[in-house]
Amino acid sequence: MDLTTIKDPSFLKDLSTEELENLATSIRNFLIEELSVTGGHLGANLGVVELTLALHKIFDSPTDKFVWDVGHQSYIHKILTGRADQFSTLRQYKGLCGFPKRNESEHDVWETGHSSTSLSAAMGMVLARDMQGADYSVVPVIGDGALTGGMALEALNHIGHEKKNMTVILNDNEMSIASNVGALHNMLGRMRSARKYHWVKDEMEILLKRIPAVGGRLATAAERIKDSMKYFMVPGMFFEELGFTYYGPVDGHDFNDLSETIQYAKKTEGPVIVHVVTKKGKGYHPAESDQKDKWHGVGPYKIESGEKIKPTNAPPAWSEVVSETLQKKAREDNRIAAITPAMILGSKLEKFGEEFPDRLFDVGIAEQHATTLAAGMATQGMKPFLAIYSTFLQRAYDQLVHDVCRQNLNVTFGIDRAGLVGADGETHQGVFDIAFMRHLPNMTIMMPKDENEGQHMVHTALEYDDGPVAVRYPRGNGLGVHMDEELQEIPIGSWEVLKSGTDAAILTFGTTISMALEASNMLEKKGISVQVINARYIKPMDEAMLHDLMAQSMPLLTVEEAVLQGGFGSAVLEFAQDHQYYNQIVQRIGIPDRYIEHGSVGQLYEEVGLTKENIADKLEELLPEQQQRA
Amino acid sequence: MDLTTIKDPSFLKDLSTEELENLATSIRNFLIEELSVTGGHLGANLGVVELTLALHKIFDSPTDKFVWDVGHQSYIHKILTGRADQFSTLRQYKGLCGFPKRNESEHDVWETGHSSTSLSAAMGMVLARDMQGADYSVVPVIGDGALTGGMALEALNHIGHEKKNMTVILNDNEMSIASNVGALHNMLGRMRSARKYHWVKDEMEILLKRIPAVGGRLATAAERIKDSMKYFMVPGMFFEELGFTYYGPVDGHDFNDLSETIQYAKKTEGPVIVHVVTKKGKGYHPAESDQKDKWHGVGPYKIESGEKIKPTNAPPAWSEVVSETLQKKAREDNRIAAITPAMILGSKLEKFGEEFPDRLFDVGIAEQHATTLAAGMATQGMKPFLAIYSTFLQRAYDQLVHDVCRQNLNVTFGIDRAGLVGADGETHQGVFDIAFMRHLPNMTIMMPKDENEGQHMVHTALEYDDGPVAVRYPRGNGLGVHMDEELQEIPIGSWEVLKSGTDAAILTFGTTISMALEASNMLEKKGISVQVINARYIKPMDEAMLHDLMAQSMPLLTVEEAVLQGGFGSAVLEFAQDHQYYNQIVQRIGIPDRYIEHGSVGQLYEEVGLTKENIADKLEELLPEQQQRA
Repeated sequence: MDLTTIKDPSFLKDLSTEELENLATSIRNFLIEELSVTGGHLGANLGVVELTLALHKIFDSPTDKFVWDVGHQSYIHKILTGRADQFSTLRQYKGLCGFPKRNESEHDVWETGHSSTSLSAAMGMVLARDMQGADYSVVPVIGDGALTGGMALEALNHIGHEKKNMTVILNDNEMSIASNVGALHNMLGRMRSARKYHWVKDEMEILLKRIPAVGGRLATAAERIKDSMKYFMVPGMFFEELGFTYYGPVDGHDFNDLSETIQYAKKTEGPVIVHVVTKKGKGYHPAESDQKDKWHGVGPYKIESGEKIKPTNAPPAWSEVVSETLQKKAREDNRIAAITPAMILGSKLEKFGEEFPDRLFDVGIAEQHATTLAAGMATQGMKPFLAIYSTFLQRAYDQLVHDVCRQNLNVTFGIDRAGLVGADGETHQGVFDIAFMRHLPNMTIMMPKDENEGQHMVHTALEYDDGPVAVRYPRGNGLGVHMDEELQEIPIGSWEVLKSGTDAAILTFGTTISMALEASNMLEKKGISVQVINARYIKPMDEAMLHDLMAQSMPLLTVEEAVLQGGFGSAVLEFAQDHQYYNQIVQRIGIPDRYIEHGSVGQLYEEVGLTKENIADKLEELLPEQQQRA
Repeated sequence: MDLTTIKDPSFLKDLSTEELENLATSIRNFLIEELSVTGGHLGANLGVVELTLALHKIFDSPTDKFVWDVGHQSYIHKILTGRADQFSTLRQYKGLCGFPKRNESEHDVWETGHSSTSLSAAMGMVLARDMQGADYSVVPVIGDGALTGGMALEALNHIGHEKKNMTVILNDNEMSIASNVGALHNMLGRMRSARKYHWVKDEMEILLKRIPAVGGRLATAAERIKDSMKYFMVPGMFFEELGFTYYGPVDGHDFNDLSETIQYAKKTEGPVIVHVVTKKGKGYHPAESDQKDKWHGVGPYKIESGEKIKPTNAPPAWSEVVSETLQKKAREDNRIAAITPAMILGSKLEKFGEEFPDRLFDVGIAEQHATTLAAGMATQGMKPFLAIYSTFLQRAYDQLVHDVCRQNLNVTFGIDRAGLVGADGETHQGVFDIAFMRHLPNMTIMMPKDENEGQHMVHTALEYDDGPVAVRYPRGNGLGVHMDEELQEIPIGSWEVLKSGTDAAILTFGTTISMALEASNMLEKKGISVQVINARYIKPMDEAMLHDLMAQSMPLLTVEEAVLQGGFGSAVLEFAQDHQYYNQIVQRIGIPDRYIEHGSVGQLYEEVGLTKENIADKLEELLPEQQQRA
């Protein structure tokens, strides 16, 4: 079947099981083919081919609402709702988004990217439906990993209480991003190995009838057993306790099993959980046999061999440099421990875990818990290092405010994927962390200019013992610079002049340093002499250097790959006004006040004006201003 | 017993049950007496008198670590650790904190205020202990309400998985702040009415032996029953599923029951939950018979009658004005629904709930879920209003970024307790919300000058249909102004000149307007003419007015009861630089870069310089600057 001819999912209603199976094969081949060129979330999508087909056959989207948790598993949904022809643009600038997107299709009713939001969103829709007297199904599809996020558990508690109709699909692929951890995971494991609900129930009833009549206290116990019939239904008990009707486990690759159970669930009153067991990467051998989830999000690959097409001799990844430094430090200092919210692979902590299995803690998708866990460790003299993506640290803002910074505890945050992240798009851009951390008392925030400074910063952060420190670093690879053998402390709050100049100064840090240097070189040719300063400490700033610059009335341009409002440039403005440098010229370049969609980081830089040309232009604009005032 | 003679809890080891009971009575009398003068969290503390005594008798603090969730129930702990003599200063400026405080006592190992952090913190301590090869008990004490917070559930998932020794005390008082809601609450209700664990277990074993031998499929089922023994232990099954050993329910006011079970738990390997049933307000009739939890946090009262000592004829509370306006709007617009995270009483939503029982949703202590629930509703054309305290909205920062603002949904946030809150102190000050919301695209933020403007703002927010709106309002009562009959829209982004002037202008909003007006009056007597502007929209700002002021080079002073870094004043600085008003003088007054402790709001104003005198002084400093430049 030519998948690009699909306009909407209504054609599925008439398909036989055999036709569905053929369609599933076509979809798998299409995904394996398309993603070998564009990259994308292959494993998760191959796991839900049959499930997505079954859901679209049984429910009527968009009247019925699918809410895809995380959303990276929505590719089949996109194909079935008329978007197959856009897959060559997947996750590319102005192309198809890798997550549900309301402006792409009326079938996308909820946008995601971060995990664990689906149950709350679905409950909002359910309550709206019932207040409006409407009648449709709301079907959140949530993975076992996302279920450990606190917000999803909060939602379970509310949904189970309200008893409204909702069909929750628990897509249990034994993985969160990588192998799942936690007690819920263990429980689901027991449930997967259990037989189906209705079998157990029948057997129990027969058995109970055989218990001979007894008197006294034992009679009460026998009554209890009978009253508590539902507690016997071993697999779903946990969910039943929370007020859900549980169906499962269902083989997520068997259309008959899926169809029978989901149809049953659709008719059931109150909230239902259908426990569907799927296999990530199903149908593509390299992905299916992947134990470490390296096929979760992939770049281009060779279909036959599964070999990843990667640039050779790339410099080490930032995560790797940080992780190796941490490992080196941990050898000397047994107070150091690492914590990750389900990102051992992404944060490159495997080797750390091999060397220090008792000092690495993967807490699952649980950023709030991870942060306060680190705070708890720090109260007992440990030096915890929390490796976390910038965008996911957003989940732990209150834990930063209330637990870590307020108690001024020695927690180091390795803030990975800081800045624009590219293909994952607006839900994942790490552009808010400076704005949400800069106003936190006791917090130190730094970002290195290259991976060598990066290792020194990790060292500095772990040596510092007067409160929390955040070291930010971008997604992707370092610059390939020479790495010093010996780790050095970088004095807290010290900046560095990278290039001297007399007409103006650029204050910048991290990824934007290179474009600042290039802009300065461009201007040099025009006879304009511009300093470039590595403002590696965002908080505290180098006050001596700022005083020095401002005392000279040196026009300043701040450049940051982060939101402008409340960002680093604003800190410089605040400093100027606090110290009555009323004539100080400060201009700012950074991320404007809107969400930035997906695309290559280079394209996004162009879009927002983080370019050497724009930096040079801004500086040229500033200088006549300055001359007027001189 | 004279409680002020207690230096540490070691004396408890030798007390008999009778002596403990007498001590419990002394403590109750002491609390009822002291709090009748100072106010404080009476109900929660009266509920845990016996529990705290039992814990301090069985464990050895500070070697063993108590982690009090929320912390408002730590008064008895404070008495037993030598702080009875400070109770006359409770929650007062420089006095005893209403929550655990590490600088008060070595027995306070973890500071709280917000709920649901104890399990994560305790787990951090447990992991630190085991990495350090130490041997002590870690004992988090968490209420049934706090247990519904997502972070606590994330922690359960991790703790149950790691299997380390920890003794969790579940203090089940059938209340969160007010009546608890949610499926977990229902489950605890079933558990409370169940008999003790060990009874059930014994009976089950006898019964199981009586099941006659059977063959075939039934034999498997019989095996399953035997294998699944623990699932029969009805009360604790939920926790057992999560990997905990469950003991309970225990009568939290019976020393023998408490002592026996807690000692047993202390010896048990792995994580244990002791389910203790307590009665909030126990031993003081007005509090004990309180169904609505009006004795949760109280001001002074008359001991005999329980009558609250309150100023008569106070203007209406801000929460009340907002809630009444919401109710008025809901009568005309059936798209309006209200959501609260366990704060029906605090947010004064009782009357709304009486009139619109199907349009008010109390989701329990679950700020993340509450926020995304609202977002989900909004996708279906509803107009949800989330009533939430500023400090608790911190928990939902990522939900603001990722769900509400990014999808630009019509959710209205009624941000209660914005600004300094007084006696609850640093964990509760609502001073960060501007800094953490101002950089969010699509967000509108406003704060009214008085309760009349407040009602118009709630109206305006609910009429607005192009994205999220936050209306901030302070703790406490309005000003007693005349309330307009008809609700009016206040044009988005419009400021208001409250007092004209020619020498300088104060830009301020909300609570600080009155001191600005007074400062202006003070200066007027000195011949200095200062405008006062009601900058009621923090985002978007009144750009026309800003251009007008800056084009005149009018020196500006911003005054805000919120953190300075990234705050409203910084927005004004950013505006000036964005529009090249390089000579513009802007000075800022607000909350400095540190946490602000408890005290009366007036005392805290003095401390941080939010006073008419400081405003006047700052303006006088500015004017010579301006004259130099003119």
